[in-house]
Amino acid sequence: MTTKVEWRTLASEKKAKQLASIPKEWLDRLATNIPPSTELDVTSYPRVCGLLDGRELDITESDVTSLLLKVASGEWTALEVTIAFCKRAVIAQQLTNCLTEIFFERAFASASALDEYFKRTGKVIGTLHGLPVSLKDQVKIKGFDSTIGYVSYINIPAERNAVLADILESQGAVLFVKTNVPQTLMWPETHNNIFGRTLNPNNRSLTSGGSSGGEGALVALRGSPLGAALGLISEGKSVRIPSACCGTYGLRPSYGRVPYAGCANSLEGQDSVLSVLGPLSNSIDGLKLFIKAVVDSKPWIQDPLAICKRWSEEEYLLADHGDGQELCFAVMWDDGVTVPDPPILRGLEMTKEALLAAGHKVIDWTPLKHMEIYKCIAAIWSAGAAEDYDVVTAVSGEPVIQSMLPETDVLASEPASFRPSSETSISAYQLWQVQKERRILREEHLRHWQDTVAVTGTGRPVDAILCPVASSTAPPHGTTKNANYTMIWNALDYTALVIPVSKVDQKLDVKRERGAFYNSTDKTQYEDYNPATFANAPIAIQVVGRTLQEEAVLGISEIVDSALKARRSK
Amino acid sequence: MTTKVEWRTLASEKKAKQLASIPKEWLDRLATNIPPSTELDVTSYPRVCGLLDGRELDITESDVTSLLLKVASGEWTALEVTIAFCKRAVIAQQLTNCLTEIFFERAFASASALDEYFKRTGKVIGTLHGLPVSLKDQVKIKGFDSTIGYVSYINIPAERNAVLADILESQGAVLFVKTNVPQTLMWPETHNNIFGRTLNPNNRSLTSGGSSGGEGALVALRGSPLGAALGLISEGKSVRIPSACCGTYGLRPSYGRVPYAGCANSLEGQDSVLSVLGPLSNSIDGLKLFIKAVVDSKPWIQDPLAICKRWSEEEYLLADHGDGQELCFAVMWDDGVTVPDPPILRGLEMTKEALLAAGHKVIDWTPLKHMEIYKCIAAIWSAGAAEDYDVVTAVSGEPVIQSMLPETDVLASEPASFRPSSETSISAYQLWQVQKERRILREEHLRHWQDTVAVTGTGRPVDAILCPVASSTAPPHGTTKNANYTMIWNALDYTALVIPVSKVDQKLDVKRERGAFYNSTDKTQYEDYNPATFANAPIAIQVVGRTLQEEAVLGISEIVDSALKARRSK
Repeated sequence: MTTKVEWRTLASEKKAKQLASIPKEWLDRLATNIPPSTELDVTSYPRVCGLLDGRELDITESDVTSLLLKVASGEWTALEVTIAFCKRAVIAQQLTNCLTEIFFERAFASASALDEYFKRTGKVIGTLHGLPVSLKDQVKIKGFDSTIGYVSYINIPAERNAVLADILESQGAVLFVKTNVPQTLMWPETHNNIFGRTLNPNNRSLTSGGSSGGEGALVALRGSPLGAALGLISEGKSVRIPSACCGTYGLRPSYGRVPYAGCANSLEGQDSVLSVLGPLSNSIDGLKLFIKAVVDSKPWIQDPLAICKRWSEEEYLLADHGDGQELCFAVMWDDGVTVPDPPILRGLEMTKEALLAAGHKVIDWTPLKHMEIYKCIAAIWSAGAAEDYDVVTAVSGEPVIQSMLPETDVLASEPASFRPSSETSISAYQLWQVQKERRILREEHLRHWQDTVAVTGTGRPVDAILCPVASSTAPPHGTTKNANYTMIWNALDYTALVIPVSKVDQKLDVKRERGAFYNSTDKTQYEDYNPATFANAPIAIQVVGRTLQEEAVLGISEIVDSALKARRSK
Repeated sequence: MTTKVEWRTLASEKKAKQLASIPKEWLDRLATNIPPSTELDVTSYPRVCGLLDGRELDITESDVTSLLLKVASGEWTALEVTIAFCKRAVIAQQLTNCLTEIFFERAFASASALDEYFKRTGKVIGTLHGLPVSLKDQVKIKGFDSTIGYVSYINIPAERNAVLADILESQGAVLFVKTNVPQTLMWPETHNNIFGRTLNPNNRSLTSGGSSGGEGALVALRGSPLGAALGLISEGKSVRIPSACCGTYGLRPSYGRVPYAGCANSLEGQDSVLSVLGPLSNSIDGLKLFIKAVVDSKPWIQDPLAICKRWSEEEYLLADHGDGQELCFAVMWDDGVTVPDPPILRGLEMTKEALLAAGHKVIDWTPLKHMEIYKCIAAIWSAGAAEDYDVVTAVSGEPVIQSMLPETDVLASEPASFRPSSETSISAYQLWQVQKERRILREEHLRHWQDTVAVTGTGRPVDAILCPVASSTAPPHGTTKNANYTMIWNALDYTALVIPVSKVDQKLDVKRERGAFYNSTDKTQYEDYNPATFANAPIAIQVVGRTLQEEAVLGISEIVDSALKARRSK
């Protein structure tokens, strides 16, 4: 019992310290008109709360490229840009509880140094000069904690920056906050015993996703122009599920394209299904800027797992895809395991229409052995996960969270959680057998893709797969059914980019008639669907390319995004 | 006992079938003057045996580039080139027992098809048009076995080609033989219960190295212009130890630069210290041609683990190394675990002198935590190796080989063997802990390298490390002390290229005085040294660059090789 008291005390002290790191004046001003918790859609609050003046609204609602141009031309200073985003991040925090570490003083000092440099030399220090960038809690900043949702990691400040933090700063980025994650990092929702739950700004009764739920909520509220989310590839959710839940763009690069060294993680030493870092932003342009800035910094000289591959303008311009003239997309309508809800299918239908109208081809994708792949990945994670959680939580005595449902400490019935136990633990040799099986499945899947050359009519295999990000839009807290639609691409290490397409529409997204079901989860998901439950939830799609095809996926996604925008403007 | 009889029968039938696949006429002609087993240096026999006429000698002693040019110009046909190398491979087989699968009819048919194509179109089919290429036994060829030294794998013909075999053939290579390996692939020597032991052509009382010992002996005797050796990175020996033992050039690329899919392996599913494929040849040019031809074929669209990185001419021209104008090399004289024998040190001294004379800088390299890294890698392999060996050998009942010493079936005292047991087997969680430790060591080592920027005086960190390939030249069969000097770079996944420098000289390579020893193996190695034992053994060095720096390591190695050649011609 003493231990239990101790972890709760540690957690509440940490949370109090967090509150104290926010300027009191800002909190006081927000306190006067903060919406009640019953107000679900809080996306318009930043514009009306009064904490941001007109110029600060312009700054925070500017796209990344314009923002960088205005700082580089001297129109805006790095400091005023930073202050604007710090304010808006505080607004986002009050609305959705999305932050962990808050270090505005450090940010103001960095921004002032950049302004001083610019004043002295007339030049920018790097391609991200003056751009505030938020980081998922896993990315270590010297002197600050990376608790990653574990009480055990409170008060263990990092001894050095993660490689990514150093690289971003060397390019002129201003780091200012870190963002919330679920305990163990292995949930597609965001809640832990220190900072609590992060809410979805589009509808606060819904999850912001996970494990980068904090980043998703913050970027969606424009409390950050660019967020770096590190996804323990784990349940395959990170970056993309929060992006889709909250309505931002997000990119999942392949293993090693973005440096990961020096980040905190769960299941450390698991070398098979690797963690990746990826950006979230409100435009594809933000994602591209991030990837290019990072790759141009040659991360491989600092991180042994970073892939030594320069930015390829040739690949970005789609040299391997007929210069983007007539692409052939394949839509995966469902994965043969769970049929997506009506809004998700509508998102895909809209995308198909838009691409056909833009002169591209769209065919159907045949999913290959998804269930086998899901089982393989689950077995790899659970091989040692139970010991991992136990060892980490034993230090503080906090319990391992068993459900993401609010107000519960018991095992819930939802199948979304990744709940390993000592029964799922296996020997190293057994692990190798599962990993061998996975390698064979990866080879089969790549051949399956390559074989589409016979049906596209372009002389190439399918240029990109279009598919759901999840079987539903952001669901109510604790009810996520699975993370299969993202996990599949982690398992295969394919590059995947999330594009927001629309929002749930009460008239258009009514329940569709269905006959047979794949399985009981599929049936439950169908039965649970009701457009009212998902009011205002963003709808998104994934654009998927093969391994280490970040440049091509960015290039192709710009074409998809433009087609969707052209369709909307009609 | 019945099982035992059965595996011996299977093995001898396989060996008899191998003999039957060689044209009897060639064997008969060689039988007349084959050197007795007491004749140790057999390197000059191919020129005097009479099986090869003058033109065939010219063909087989031509360098790879000249050979390709002569086939491309129509001066030589692919078929006559193939016949010449098939004959010479048979000579090498009779001298050193280096082959496994022999498929000359298939090779003649491929070569004839190439000639027909050339005659019809006046063009070559790819950059390797008409070049015979030998393959380590692991590389699968449809319809042929890949026994990789296991009786259990006899009579299981491959259902499809390995990706590498397909790629080489698509570029015009003519596949004609596969080469011998040790049982388990985890030995730095080459011997198994099916094909027996491969000897070193420079001195048949010495090992040809392993696990690509067959490839080493074959290429050294010019029975193949280019060999693809797949190293189970395992004991870190493959490609480089056979190259150094036999006196060829050899390149160990980083994980995934050369496609590995569809190859047979030991310890399958071990995803942490990955296997790599690399070329052996009699010139750096051969290595470069191989890597470039493979990378230009975009192996990543066929192998999910192949790195999507195009050939970079910029990196090859040393854009990141001051255009190669004034390089700074660091010599690692010893690893702090075993001091190399006198010939090895002389090889490094010669290289240092040559580079200084060529206007480059040479400083000393400080080894970092080698013993910690060796222990880590050994723990990763042994995590499930005992079960792996048991499961594979159980099928046939053949025993797991416990020593590479001739005429022995018992545990020997030499420490070279990698002998896991059920006691070294660990759980998946324990494996993750070792893998985590290794990842930290990799990060430390990369920082260690990067930090040399302070001492090179070039404004860059050290451009390449020069070091031994092993602590001795090829030792007598069964007496290899360890594979540490190659294993270190596998553990770190650095690119490493072997350059032959000289041969053991009875006068120059006398024992040097030494005082203290690092440990008992170090002392034994010192005591065992005697130039007579190692008569005529090749001396080689390693040129080491960082991960995925194949282009730069090739470019830098050409500079080292030229400097050595300039020194020799003085």
